[in-house]
Amino acid sequence: MPGPVQSIERAAAILRLLAAGTGRLGVGEIAASLGLARGTAHGILRTLERVGFVEQDRDSGKYQLGAALLHLGSSYLDVNELRSRALNWADALAARSGEAVRIGTLLEGRVLVVHHVFRPDDTLQTLDVGALLPLHATALGKALLAHDANAVAAVRGTELETFCRRTVTDHRELSRALARVRENGWAAEVEELSIGEAAIAAPIRGHGGLVVGAIGISGAVERLCDARRVPDARLVGYVRDAARAVSREFGGSRW
Amino acid sequence: MPGPVQSIERAAAILRLLAAGTGRLGVGEIAASLGLARGTAHGILRTLERVGFVEQDRDSGKYQLGAALLHLGSSYLDVNELRSRALNWADALAARSGEAVRIGTLLEGRVLVVHHVFRPDDTLQTLDVGALLPLHATALGKALLAHDANAVAAVRGTELETFCRRTVTDHRELSRALARVRENGWAAEVEELSIGEAAIAAPIRGHGGLVVGAIGISGAVERLCDARRVPDARLVGYVRDAARAVSREFGGSRW
Repeated sequence: MPGPVQSIERAAAILRLLAAGTGRLGVGEIAASLGLARGTAHGILRTLERVGFVEQDRDSGKYQLGAALLHLGSSYLDVNELRSRALNWADALAARSGEAVRIGTLLEGRVLVVHHVFRPDDTLQTLDVGALLPLHATALGKALLAHDANAVAAVRGTELETFCRRTVTDHRELSRALARVRENGWAAEVEELSIGEAAIAAPIRGHGGLVVGAIGISGAVERLCDARRVPDARLVGYVRDAARAVSREFGGSRW
Repeated sequence: MPGPVQSIERAAAILRLLAAGTGRLGVGEIAASLGLARGTAHGILRTLERVGFVEQDRDSGKYQLGAALLHLGSSYLDVNELRSRALNWADALAARSGEAVRIGTLLEGRVLVVHHVFRPDDTLQTLDVGALLPLHATALGKALLAHDANAVAAVRGTELETFCRRTVTDHRELSRALARVRENGWAAEVEELSIGEAAIAAPIRGHGGLVVGAIGISGAVERLCDARRVPDARLVGYVRDAARAVSREFGGSRW
């Protein structure tokens, strides 16, 4: 039955479009962006509004994402195995390292943050759960890329976006970096995503050694690295210990 | 065009079913729960899987919510006006009161938590963003119920679930409590949702005085109330100040 499939795919495309933008879009903008007839887009939007997945602004008549999606997203977290198995280890890693901890998994060629423990101090921090980070410019992303053929395929041939002067934007250079990640068992990123920040991550393995996610720390480059910009061996050890502990919970590691 | 509408509504119903349960469901269970033919349910599930809204477990073949929903949920938060306007006031309320702060809005007859600031101490706390709380047994819910005809309609005639001995389960008693909320301008709940816990909340008003949400604190009953179980006047003042400040940002209050 091609009919139902198509309308659901179109509905999903509208939700993605609204999530990608900065806020609200009119029915005309949505129809034009997705190559839909205006009436088709309108019918889908009205249905999405009825089920709470989009909301229409009273004043402008424009559409934005709806509240029901927040509950679905948090319900996803409740049943997410990676997150539930890693919760305690993430807290322990934040306490040992004194840095913020994130757990990521692969989604649509990017890193989806499924858990975030704030750096254990009193500074104001923003929760990153649900954010999509670039694979090639994050330690979590490199840890996933190095061990996941699907992730590599998602990145191959695409333009590697520049975030900072040090972002790896050359595919051959990225390949060499990933080979080192496989050799070392951990990945790092030093001022490749934002100036002054660095990160260290290691892969989480499930049954049969398959990489199901990555766990890592991020923070000020002067805390995470030495003067030569090399990640601190003690912190690398903490990250690897945490990744190994979570992998053991998944039956993906025996040591 | 009734066709597309129906398939999107069915897709939404499947996602709600998966969110309501404890995790994974088989195609047969889903079809039976929603009164769909097995083939219809299967076609929708395959489409939802393709767009990342559900995931199929390799071993059991059962379905669960997918990672793409987490990103949509967090994108909703990014554009949520209530949350963005209230962020700083919520932090200030947590600092002044020393208690956890939650901001809620109405969704499907319950309180959707759109923001949560942890109690400013080192205790382990779980993030409630995205959770759905009962209207009649929470201070946030009573603040919304007292000022929202839609919320009252959602509760009217339904059975008021018992959570504790003190939960208000009688509709007439609830009506009297809501009248007091309207009179006082704030709502409280003392051991009505969980033993040892209390909460205080006040409504957030938008343009024209319309209630768009509620903000409140919750914590140990001995910290929030006096020996006669009456909420502390100083804390009530803090909550009302915060609600008024956020309302002012919305253009919903001039004082």
